[in-house]
Amino acid sequence: IRPWGYGVWENMQSALDTMFKDTGHENAYFPLLIPMSFIEREKEHVEGFAPELAVVTKAGGRELEEPYVVRPTSETIVYSMYAKWVQSYRDLPVLLNQWANVMRWEMRTRLFLRTSEFLWQEGHTAHATEDEAVDETLKILDIYKETVQDVMGIPVLTGKKSESEKFAGAVDTYCIEAMMGDKKALQAGTSHYLGQNFAKAFDVKFQDSSNTEDYVYATSWGVSTRLIGGLIMVHGDDQGLRLPPNIAPIQVVIIPIAKTDDDLAGIESYISDLISSFKGSGVRFLFDRREKMSPGFKFNEWEMKGVPIRIEVGPRDIEGGGIMVARRDTGEKKSILIGDAPDAVSHLLTDIQSTLFQQAVDFREENTFTATEYGEFKKMIGDGGFVQAGWDGKDSTEDSVKKDTKATIRCILDEKVSDDLRCIYSGDKALYKVVYAKAY
Amino acid sequence: IRPWGYGVWENMQSALDTMFKDTGHENAYFPLLIPMSFIEREKEHVEGFAPELAVVTKAGGRELEEPYVVRPTSETIVYSMYAKWVQSYRDLPVLLNQWANVMRWEMRTRLFLRTSEFLWQEGHTAHATEDEAVDETLKILDIYKETVQDVMGIPVLTGKKSESEKFAGAVDTYCIEAMMGDKKALQAGTSHYLGQNFAKAFDVKFQDSSNTEDYVYATSWGVSTRLIGGLIMVHGDDQGLRLPPNIAPIQVVIIPIAKTDDDLAGIESYISDLISSFKGSGVRFLFDRREKMSPGFKFNEWEMKGVPIRIEVGPRDIEGGGIMVARRDTGEKKSILIGDAPDAVSHLLTDIQSTLFQQAVDFREENTFTATEYGEFKKMIGDGGFVQAGWDGKDSTEDSVKKDTKATIRCILDEKVSDDLRCIYSGDKALYKVVYAKAY
Repeated sequence: IRPWGYGVWENMQSALDTMFKDTGHENAYFPLLIPMSFIEREKEHVEGFAPELAVVTKAGGRELEEPYVVRPTSETIVYSMYAKWVQSYRDLPVLLNQWANVMRWEMRTRLFLRTSEFLWQEGHTAHATEDEAVDETLKILDIYKETVQDVMGIPVLTGKKSESEKFAGAVDTYCIEAMMGDKKALQAGTSHYLGQNFAKAFDVKFQDSSNTEDYVYATSWGVSTRLIGGLIMVHGDDQGLRLPPNIAPIQVVIIPIAKTDDDLAGIESYISDLISSFKGSGVRFLFDRREKMSPGFKFNEWEMKGVPIRIEVGPRDIEGGGIMVARRDTGEKKSILIGDAPDAVSHLLTDIQSTLFQQAVDFREENTFTATEYGEFKKMIGDGGFVQAGWDGKDSTEDSVKKDTKATIRCILDEKVSDDLRCIYSGDKALYKVVYAKAY
Repeated sequence: IRPWGYGVWENMQSALDTMFKDTGHENAYFPLLIPMSFIEREKEHVEGFAPELAVVTKAGGRELEEPYVVRPTSETIVYSMYAKWVQSYRDLPVLLNQWANVMRWEMRTRLFLRTSEFLWQEGHTAHATEDEAVDETLKILDIYKETVQDVMGIPVLTGKKSESEKFAGAVDTYCIEAMMGDKKALQAGTSHYLGQNFAKAFDVKFQDSSNTEDYVYATSWGVSTRLIGGLIMVHGDDQGLRLPPNIAPIQVVIIPIAKTDDDLAGIESYISDLISSFKGSGVRFLFDRREKMSPGFKFNEWEMKGVPIRIEVGPRDIEGGGIMVARRDTGEKKSILIGDAPDAVSHLLTDIQSTLFQQAVDFREENTFTATEYGEFKKMIGDGGFVQAGWDGKDSTEDSVKKDTKATIRCILDEKVSDDLRCIYSGDKALYKVVYAKAY
């Protein structure tokens, strides 16, 4: 991940890390290598992850007695430690998060969306009651929704996953789900209620205040560098990336139009107050003084990289007391007085943030349909987009729809189902209203 | 790494990351797994690291055709990419840093100091000239020295490593070297000038402005979670850790002495202005309102964890308009007026920071000796501490001294050597003045 992409990730990390800490979570770090026997202790977990494991069989010059897997996720190693740390209700809740790399071996990779190694955060919390753990699962889902929408400008649906799409070892998986520019769905983050599954597999028990023993109730949750892929696919256009200001490593690039060193010195002095105001108000800016590149080269480079605002300033602007301001999202360009620039830039950044978000919301709404009949459903899925429909709750229905259309249930909506809603495939009474789509 | 240790690491990360970015470096991320053939391309590199490699031989359910090693350091994978990214002098310098986990398989591990997996940052820079690369190497060495001294309060010597201690693949390794509380040395960070070694192994060439081709000149540099171990061993005492305020996850803990809920409410209202002032001035504080634990339990816990300042406040303090303030480093405890607390705490934090640093400096100086004769030298090393002495520059001398005393050359001092300085072992003319010590 080169610096521009990594800068996006750092801003996302910073926003999420603040939210996690504000809600009482602390960061910790667990080992990369997990003994194979740990992975095997939770039955559904090992079935889900076995095909994707990378295995260390040699180390320090010898064959290992027990192989280690490179963590595909850390529940097993985390719960092996929680068993030592948790004895009493006084030790609960445990609210930990880890920023880490994980590995899931992939046959077909796709840049940022599906890579054998990726970076993520994984939260692992343990609670004294089921209610508290379910609340935590949903609280994190809210944090994900809010952060991805407000910082990355990506609108997301929230809901539960069906059995076939849920995390291996979870009781319930909740997700945030986004629509990409090609109308396909992307699972952008998940929050799992794990019940007592891992607690039982690793014997994580506590004594409650009345001296009764019980297993802890657990959650885990994660978002990854996959979000960078989502960002590109939601906000990109034919000229490259368009970055919402809140996530942009550089929000404003200032490009001098200078033929001589004197020109450059004049420009620097002309914009010195503006630069001070950017520093004071925390605007992330770059004065691109590279002498080896032409202004035209710089325009193209920053446009492709998606910097929200470009400021051009040359001798002619100075003469008129102005600067030229161009916004990346709409391509609009206009001259303003330099004294007006601090306020104008601040308003523009807010406007670009909400414009990009609104465009993505509109696009998703234009491409979200409701189907009441299977023929119509198949045509809608074929044309692309999200299709809402009734589901009878059967795995076999989901399988058949997938075979017919390549679409899967992206999430089960948290809505009351009307009595007359029918399953789009079987025609039986629908238990749920769900969103179908083809997905990455 | 549990939250308290990880919090120390996060503060160190934040301080270093700011310094790196202020000097033009950007963060990036390279793959965890490195093809075995990459590691083998630089001869000294593979010789140095081969005994410590962890190897992935299976993935995705099959035996791999070519095994991967879990990175012990990333030069080889980084230079395989630089070969694609660097063509012209316009692409230089490349100034990248990576925050990552690495693995070096250890037979004997020691908490924080020598673990098979550790967290670190590794900088990798490529330059058009040797001078520029050497300058970078020394600039980073300065950043390490400044940050470790100012933030962690650990005094360090700087100097060059001897051939036997340098990084496998480097031309020169520079280090920061600290004295622990048991008088042993700890290598706390290294900055390497790599010359063109990796550039040649990975064919990283550029055209300069006159169209001549040359290999890039490179540096790499790193500090790791080993620093947490150093912090504990420099500043710990019989009651536990003592944290310098600049690195402490919590700088001030406020412990209420309350018998009833009314007491607690009264205390909260009494200290509300103080808490606002802490928030305003960025003091990292915790109001420890846990009801399940007694004040005595809390005193012990935070003392052991090393929080620099403890504030106690109960009904009697409120009556007198005061609070009780205790400093962890000296154990001093006194009552002050609550209105004086913001200033007093701010001064105390500064004072504790410099007191801890000065204690460590004094301790190192008391335990640093100069030897002029080998019998005396052996006795000094036996008693513990740093011993300065002349060295004839021969590997065989270093080997013999190590066999006799278990001490190694920790660093070659950057000092002019007087004409009459003799090698402490051979008695021949000394080429260098060096520091010998037993080390972790």
